[in-house]
Amino acid sequence: MSELNELDATDVVVGIRAGHFTAAAVMRACLDRIAAREPVIGAFAAIDPEAAMARAEAADKAGPAGPLHGVPFAIKDIIDTDFAPTGWGFDAYEGHRPTRNAVCVELFLAAGAVPLGKTVTTEFAYFRPGKTANPANPAHTPGGSSSGSAAAVADLMAPLAFGSQTAASLIRPAAYCGVLGYKATRGALDLGGVMALSGSLDSLGLLARAPRDLALGRQVLSGAPGAGEPFAEHPPRLALMRGPHWWDGSMEMRDVCQSAVARLKEAGAVVGEVAHPDVFEALTEAHKTVMAFEAGRARIYELRHHRNRISPQFLALAGDGTAIDWASYAKALQVRDAGLRALAPMFLEFDAIIAPAAPGPAPAGLAATGDPLFSRGFALLGVPCVAVPAARTPLPQAIQLIGPMMGDDRLLAATAWVADRLTP
Amino acid sequence: MSELNELDATDVVVGIRAGHFTAAAVMRACLDRIAAREPVIGAFAAIDPEAAMARAEAADKAGPAGPLHGVPFAIKDIIDTDFAPTGWGFDAYEGHRPTRNAVCVELFLAAGAVPLGKTVTTEFAYFRPGKTANPANPAHTPGGSSSGSAAAVADLMAPLAFGSQTAASLIRPAAYCGVLGYKATRGALDLGGVMALSGSLDSLGLLARAPRDLALGRQVLSGAPGAGEPFAEHPPRLALMRGPHWWDGSMEMRDVCQSAVARLKEAGAVVGEVAHPDVFEALTEAHKTVMAFEAGRARIYELRHHRNRISPQFLALAGDGTAIDWASYAKALQVRDAGLRALAPMFLEFDAIIAPAAPGPAPAGLAATGDPLFSRGFALLGVPCVAVPAARTPLPQAIQLIGPMMGDDRLLAATAWVADRLTP
Repeated sequence: MSELNELDATDVVVGIRAGHFTAAAVMRACLDRIAAREPVIGAFAAIDPEAAMARAEAADKAGPAGPLHGVPFAIKDIIDTDFAPTGWGFDAYEGHRPTRNAVCVELFLAAGAVPLGKTVTTEFAYFRPGKTANPANPAHTPGGSSSGSAAAVADLMAPLAFGSQTAASLIRPAAYCGVLGYKATRGALDLGGVMALSGSLDSLGLLARAPRDLALGRQVLSGAPGAGEPFAEHPPRLALMRGPHWWDGSMEMRDVCQSAVARLKEAGAVVGEVAHPDVFEALTEAHKTVMAFEAGRARIYELRHHRNRISPQFLALAGDGTAIDWASYAKALQVRDAGLRALAPMFLEFDAIIAPAAPGPAPAGLAATGDPLFSRGFALLGVPCVAVPAARTPLPQAIQLIGPMMGDDRLLAATAWVADRLTP
Repeated sequence: MSELNELDATDVVVGIRAGHFTAAAVMRACLDRIAAREPVIGAFAAIDPEAAMARAEAADKAGPAGPLHGVPFAIKDIIDTDFAPTGWGFDAYEGHRPTRNAVCVELFLAAGAVPLGKTVTTEFAYFRPGKTANPANPAHTPGGSSSGSAAAVADLMAPLAFGSQTAASLIRPAAYCGVLGYKATRGALDLGGVMALSGSLDSLGLLARAPRDLALGRQVLSGAPGAGEPFAEHPPRLALMRGPHWWDGSMEMRDVCQSAVARLKEAGAVVGEVAHPDVFEALTEAHKTVMAFEAGRARIYELRHHRNRISPQFLALAGDGTAIDWASYAKALQVRDAGLRALAPMFLEFDAIIAPAAPGPAPAGLAATGDPLFSRGFALLGVPCVAVPAARTPLPQAIQLIGPMMGDDRLLAATAWVADRLTP
């Protein structure tokens, strides 16, 4: 049997219910792993092992409370917790303690999950990196902004973690660290208590090692249990969309996508190809416009009260924001609407679209978190996305699966089929 | 000359700049009015007159800081302030003091506006009323949930106030109290630090006595100055849409709409009539579905930690929430999308649509805040709306103007033309 920290969340739930082990034992295994590896990985912004153990012991005492009973989970540090500080990756807020839990945290607690601690995020979930290293090779970035969550899950510190995405903050770190990353349909999960960067773009999501854990976590977060029908007899209908940036990525990226398509075909899937709609050429710039406009406004409090502690990267973004006029912003949102109209009919023919997840494997160095290029367009559209690990070259690489708006359950069902066949 | 508390925000700015009076003098006039009237009206949840005076004096000392320099404004008590408690109309949070200002508050501060205090909201901006009475007749409800903001502006306590709307929480109290109420395009103004009730529906807005104040406040809140071209030579092209609930409202309501149309025609406007698209028949129920689903989830923390202090009204809503499945929720959002597609082309022909604002004048009694029926559909669509006072019978009544998504500036320009001709 695996060490308890290596189990996926579903096996943790099943094992505790069957009396094979306790929530406390699982938590102990995760904390031991963290104690051993954290000096190298630096996944956590705040962790209190004694408090985490006490919570796990309390869960054992209380008995099964819900579908995530006893599952340790990690929380990106832009998400409010009343039991641990929430610092947004921003020096000036270090040690800040919210009075309420974010909705997503409270839903997990209500389902019986047990919080481990807060994971490192870039400053305001934008570009300035935290301390986290890539578990596959600590000389490389884990990606950002959900850096700590991706690294913690990849390094067997936690089976499940919260992430969020405004540009590529979930798909990219998942791809770089070699774990599954699921970004929900924009607006479909409650963002109460999650730091807002760009209201039109921000989405919540999960990082995990097993597709079924994404589906389980999503059921709890959606507040409306109900799983997608699994693809068993009939594999999902898939199509590769190279997209407008295909030739901006690395050769490795293109190889990973094409090899994934070949393997999925071998496994019995029908995998077509679709050209991207013309309007997709404008999505990346429109995303930048919306993000700059909204992020500068969202951080007005920090810009006025803590300006000298804000990074040059964020000041550059926020400065752009004030330079963007309303008409350009409104036009960028029209590009989004046109993109959605063009994309929607494709899902009559296909269950999910395959796209590149990142320009290539994680770049060397920890001073930057990589390029969000391959997620900006889909982030603007707001469609659900999943990063699915597809290769180790030797660094992890992934493909991205895209679903239709509100089609998250079906997309996660397709993810399960694809991941089973691609996992490197 | 009017008393200083009777001036609109634009005249306050102009007068202070010209040296006719100080920000402190305006604040003093507002505070005197509040001292005299608050025992009857009960508009404020929290107000500290000394602190408000000190802020106004500081503004005078600092000199002109921006387009709202010296304007006193009131803040609905679901909006975070670091200088005053924020209680959400919920007993358990009385006295809670946030550590940061909401984005909208900070944008107003950056523009030089001076906060008066926090205004009464219904519990969680839903149905349980606060203490506020209608200034036109204190035996009648002021409407909800932006009860205190509407009453404060109507009663000359403040020229400008923040409100918000998830169902009818801004349009209805504005209509009942006889002031202008502007609900922005959903998503177009930043909601950071504003209590979320339903992420797909919540919108921010303003209450004022002068249309130009709405435009001024909106410019500051949008973060992108730029006003709509005024309608001068050519009046706005308007159309009455009776909508699916025309016969569910009172005869008084129908009279107010039809008399407003007649007066606008007399004033030179071309006012057509448009039938509501068929899909509009489904909007109200779809709105209820989305709101119940999302509101129950949004308040999970309070439902788990303060359940015994939550009103039966809210428990009924949240209970519904858990009973709504994902498929029904997703379908309700599709109804919204279909409604928007059907509505959009109408704005090629018309600048704004005229619709009823409320079923009639404010009902007697303070135990309930009236029926949101006439706003649910437009709230679901997310389009910008303005309540424009149109009659005193003798209680105030209003019509509602509707604009296209992101067409807020043009809608406010049309509002200025219409309000000038309708003000009772």
